[in-house]
Amino acid sequence: MERFVDINCDIGEGFGIHRPGFDEEIMSHISSASIACGFHAGDPVHMRQTVGLAEAANLAIGAHPGLPDLMGFGRREMMISPDEARDYVIYQIGALQAFTRTKKLQHVKPHGALYNMGSRCEALARAVAEGVREADPDLILVGMAGSAWLTVGRELGLRVAVEAFADRSVNPDGTLVPRSLPGAVITDVDEAVSRVLRIVTEGKVRAVDGVDLEMRADTICVHGDTPGAADLSRVLRRQVEAAGLTVAPMGTFCR
Amino acid sequence: MERFVDINCDIGEGFGIHRPGFDEEIMSHISSASIACGFHAGDPVHMRQTVGLAEAANLAIGAHPGLPDLMGFGRREMMISPDEARDYVIYQIGALQAFTRTKKLQHVKPHGALYNMGSRCEALARAVAEGVREADPDLILVGMAGSAWLTVGRELGLRVAVEAFADRSVNPDGTLVPRSLPGAVITDVDEAVSRVLRIVTEGKVRAVDGVDLEMRADTICVHGDTPGAADLSRVLRRQVEAAGLTVAPMGTFCR
Amino acid sequence: MERFVDINCDIGEGFGIHRPGFDEEIMSHISSASIACGFHAGDPVHMRQTVGLAEAANLAIGAHPGLPDLMGFGRREMMISPDEARDYVIYQIGALQAFTRTKKLQHVKPHGALYNMGSRCEALARAVAEGVREADPDLILVGMAGSAWLTVGRELGLRVAVEAFADRSVNPDGTLVPRSLPGAVITDVDEAVSRVLRIVTEGKVRAVDGVDLEMRADTICVHGDTPGAADLSRVLRRQVEAAGLTVAPMGTFCR
Amino acid sequence: MERFVDINCDIGEGFGIHRPGFDEEIMSHISSASIACGFHAGDPVHMRQTVGLAEAANLAIGAHPGLPDLMGFGRREMMISPDEARDYVIYQIGALQAFTRTKKLQHVKPHGALYNMGSRCEALARAVAEGVREADPDLILVGMAGSAWLTVGRELGLRVAVEAFADRSVNPDGTLVPRSLPGAVITDVDEAVSRVLRIVTEGKVRAVDGVDLEMRADTICVHGDTPGAADLSRVLRRQVEAAGLTVAPMGTFCR
Repeated sequence: MERFVDINCDIGEGFGIHRPGFDEEIMSHISSASIACGFHAGDPVHMRQTVGLAEAANLAIGAHPGLPDLMGFGRREMMISPDEARDYVIYQIGALQAFTRTKKLQHVKPHGALYNMGSRCEALARAVAEGVREADPDLILVGMAGSAWLTVGRELGLRVAVEAFADRSVNPDGTLVPRSLPGAVITDVDEAVSRVLRIVTEGKVRAVDGVDLEMRADTICVHGDTPGAADLSRVLRRQVEAAGLTVAPMGTFCR
Repeated sequence: MERFVDINCDIGEGFGIHRPGFDEEIMSHISSASIACGFHAGDPVHMRQTVGLAEAANLAIGAHPGLPDLMGFGRREMMISPDEARDYVIYQIGALQAFTRTKKLQHVKPHGALYNMGSRCEALARAVAEGVREADPDLILVGMAGSAWLTVGRELGLRVAVEAFADRSVNPDGTLVPRSLPGAVITDVDEAVSRVLRIVTEGKVRAVDGVDLEMRADTICVHGDTPGAADLSRVLRRQVEAAGLTVAPMGTFCR
Repeated sequence: MERFVDINCDIGEGFGIHRPGFDEEIMSHISSASIACGFHAGDPVHMRQTVGLAEAANLAIGAHPGLPDLMGFGRREMMISPDEARDYVIYQIGALQAFTRTKKLQHVKPHGALYNMGSRCEALARAVAEGVREADPDLILVGMAGSAWLTVGRELGLRVAVEAFADRSVNPDGTLVPRSLPGAVITDVDEAVSRVLRIVTEGKVRAVDGVDLEMRADTICVHGDTPGAADLSRVLRRQVEAAGLTVAPMGTFCR
Repeated sequence: MERFVDINCDIGEGFGIHRPGFDEEIMSHISSASIACGFHAGDPVHMRQTVGLAEAANLAIGAHPGLPDLMGFGRREMMISPDEARDYVIYQIGALQAFTRTKKLQHVKPHGALYNMGSRCEALARAVAEGVREADPDLILVGMAGSAWLTVGRELGLRVAVEAFADRSVNPDGTLVPRSLPGAVITDVDEAVSRVLRIVTEGKVRAVDGVDLEMRADTICVHGDTPGAADLSRVLRRQVEAAGLTVAPMGTFCR
C-alpha cells in the first residue's frame, strides 16, 4: 500500500522591508505551505507574493494565523478569550484565501503561541476550530500528535492532520521543548532527518529523556526560520522518498 | 417605472474597547452596510459583531477597506504604491467575507483618504479595482459621481454604484469639501435630507459657491460618526420613500 | 497630625479619533494623573493634550505604561519576558516625560494586565521597577497593597505608593475581583465613596466574602472609563476632605 | 586649522525577530549613531540593545524618528499635520532618551519620508523643529544641505548639522534621487567614497546631470541597510582621515 507524508513549512513570515531568507529555495522541496496572515508576520504584499510563489511551485496552501503580536512574532502567549481567538483566525483565513487563485485553502495551522496554547487548552482549540469550520468546513486543521487540536477538530467534523516537527526536540509527554531551553531546536540536518524517518516508518521518536514515544505524523514541519532550513527540507524530502514514502499535500490523503 | 436608491452607512468603525456610537440604531434605516475591515478601524471581534447585526437587520454588506493608519483613522493620505493599495484591499475584502454567512459581499467602498486618493488618481483606482475583481468579480465598486473609481471600475467590467453624501458639502467641481474646512459637514438634518431629495429626484445639488451641479446617485452615504447620524438616516429614509422612491440595496438594481 | 491621601485617575486613554469621555471633568477633582503612553492607548497627540490639561489643572503627572496590545486595551496578560517588560516601561516613561514642562514625572503606575501580572510575579515587578529606576530614580512606583510592586520597589530603593481602588471589589486575599466577574466594578457612587472612607480612616475594607481586610492607601484610584467616574471623583474628594484628610499628590507625602 | 567631519549611520532599524544585518560592524567606523525609535522600526528591546552597543563604541547618539508606518518602514509620505509631526517626534525623542546613560541625546535626524517631506515643507519642518526644541533645546537638528530643516532649525535657535549622503545620488537641485529610480543608491564603495571626499575637501558633488553642485557637510550618512554598508563605512573613515580630516561627533564641532 502506498504510504504518504506531507512536508509543510511556515513561509511568508517577513514584514515590510524585513524579508524571510529562504522561502523560495524551501518551496521546491515541500508539499504544503503555511503562509503567515498579517498578525504575527506577513503583510498583504508579502502574502500576495508568497501565495504566487507557492502556486507557481504547485504547493498546497494553508493559513498560518497567529496572535496579534507583531513585536513578539506571535510567540508570546496572550490571554485572549476563545471568542477573540476564533475571530482572529476567521479574519486571517479570509484574508489569505482572497489572494489565492481558487479562493480555497487546504489547511489551517495556528502559529507559535496560539498553536501551543490550543494544544493544551480545549476551550481555545474548540473556538479556533469553530472559526475554521465557519470560514470553510473543507479546511484541514493541523495539530500536534496528542494535542487538543486533533480531538476538537474531529469532534467538530473537520478533517485533521497530525503534525510532527523535524527540527524540534520533544518532552516525554510529546510536547515540544520550549524554544527558550537549550537543545529545543535541532540544527543538525542528519539528526533531524533520522528522527523524521523513524516517525514516518516506525511511528516512534526519542524524547529528551532518551525514552521512545509513539508518534505518527501526516505532515512534517520544517521551520523556515531555522538556519539551514532549505538544506534540511531538501535532504528530508530525498530521504523520505528513498524510504519508500510518497510526499504529497495532506489534502490528498487526510480524511 | 419604479425608481430605486440605496442608503449606505460606514459602520463597525470602533476598535478594541472604543465602540462606535449609533451603529445599531442606524442599521434599522439603511439598506447597505459598509463595514470597516481592521486597517483604519474595526478589529475582528467588531467585524463579527457588526456583520451579525447587519445580517440580522437584512442589510446588504460591503467592505469598507482603509489605509493602514489606525492612529489617523485612515483619513491621512499615504503615498502607497498602486500594488500596495491593491493588496491591502484584497486582504481586507477577504477578511470581511469570511465573517458573512454567504461568504459573499455586495460591494466595496474604499474609506477616507483611500477613497479620496482613488477618486482623482486613476492608477491607484485601477489597482484597487483590479484587487476588487481579483477578490470577487461580482462585487460592486462604489465611488463618487465623476470619480476615477467609476471609470476604471466600468473599464474593468465591474458593476459600479454612484455615491452621494447626505452630510457633506461639495465643491463646484463635485468633489467633497475637505473635513478640515468650515461647513464641510452638514449637521442640519433637514438641510441634508433636502439635498438628497434634490439629487435623487432632480439629479442636482447646490455646490458651496451657490451654483447647481448635476449629481445623480445610486447610493446615499450617511456617515455613522456624524453627530445625529441615526436621526438623519431615519428621516432620510422616510422622506425618500415619501418622494416615491424605493430604498433597496444597490445590488438589486445596479448593473 | 495632618493626614494625606492622593486621588489618581487613569486618563488620556483614547486613541486616534476615539476619545475618552470624561477626562477634563475628572481632572478638576483629582490630585494625580496617570497618563496612557501609547501601548494600550494614548497616541502622541492625545498625550500632549492630556499632559497640557493636567498641567493646567495643577495635577501631578505619572506614566501609565501598558502592554503592547492596543486591540485588547492592555487588559490581556501576555507572557512577555521581564527584560521586555523593563524595556517597554522605560520606553513609555521616556515618551511621556518629553511632553511635560519639567521633563520629570511624579510616578509610574503600570496599566491593566501588566499591573496585575506584576502584583503577583516578583521577577516581572522587579524588572519593571529596575526600568523605572533606570529612567529616573526619583519616580514613585504605584502598586496595590500587598503586591510585589511594593516589596520590589522598596528593595530597589524607589519610593512607593500604596494604591486602593474606589470602584473595584476585592477578593479575600486583597486582590481585585477580575473585571470579567459580576460585581467586579462598583458603580454605586455612595458605596464606592464609603469604602474609600473606611480605607483612609480605619484602614479596612470589606472583601467579597463579607469579611473585613486590612487595607491602607496612599492613593485612591478612580477609573476614568467607569461610567459615572466624574461624579465619583467629585463626591469622593468632597467626602475625603470632609473626613479631615488633605487631598494632595503622592509626591508631597510618600517616601 | 583642524577640519572635522562626522560619519553617522541609521541603526537599530530591525523590529521584533527581524534584525538589521551589520549594525555592530558599522559602529566601529562611525562617530554618530541615529537610532530608530519604534515608529518605522526599532522596538524597545532593540532600542536598549542598540543604545548599549553605541555607548560601548563611544558613539554620540541621536534619535531617528519616523512616521507611524511600520509596514512601509516610514518611507511612504503621509499627510500628517504639522502638529501631529511635532508630537510624534517629541514622543520618539523622549522614548530613546530614556535608554541612554546620560538621558541626553546629541541630535535628531528625521527618517525616510519625514526627512524628505520636511526638507521641502517649511511648515512641517518648523513643527518638528519646535518639537525637538521642546524636548531638549540642546539637541542638534540634522538636515540636508539646502533643506528647510536647516533654515527653520537656525530660526528657532537650534544648532543644525548639514548632512550629505555617501551612498545616494543627487538631483541637479541638490535633493536626493528617490529610491524608486534607477541609480538612486550608489553601491560601488570607491565611487561613494570619492564623492564624499570631494564634498568634504572641495565642497562639491556631481549631480545626476553631470554638473557639479556646491555641497558641504558636517556629517556624512552611511545607510545601514545598503548592502556593503559596513565595508563602505570602514573605507570611508580611513580615506577621510587620510585626507587630513578628523572624524568626530557633530556635537563636538557644530554650533
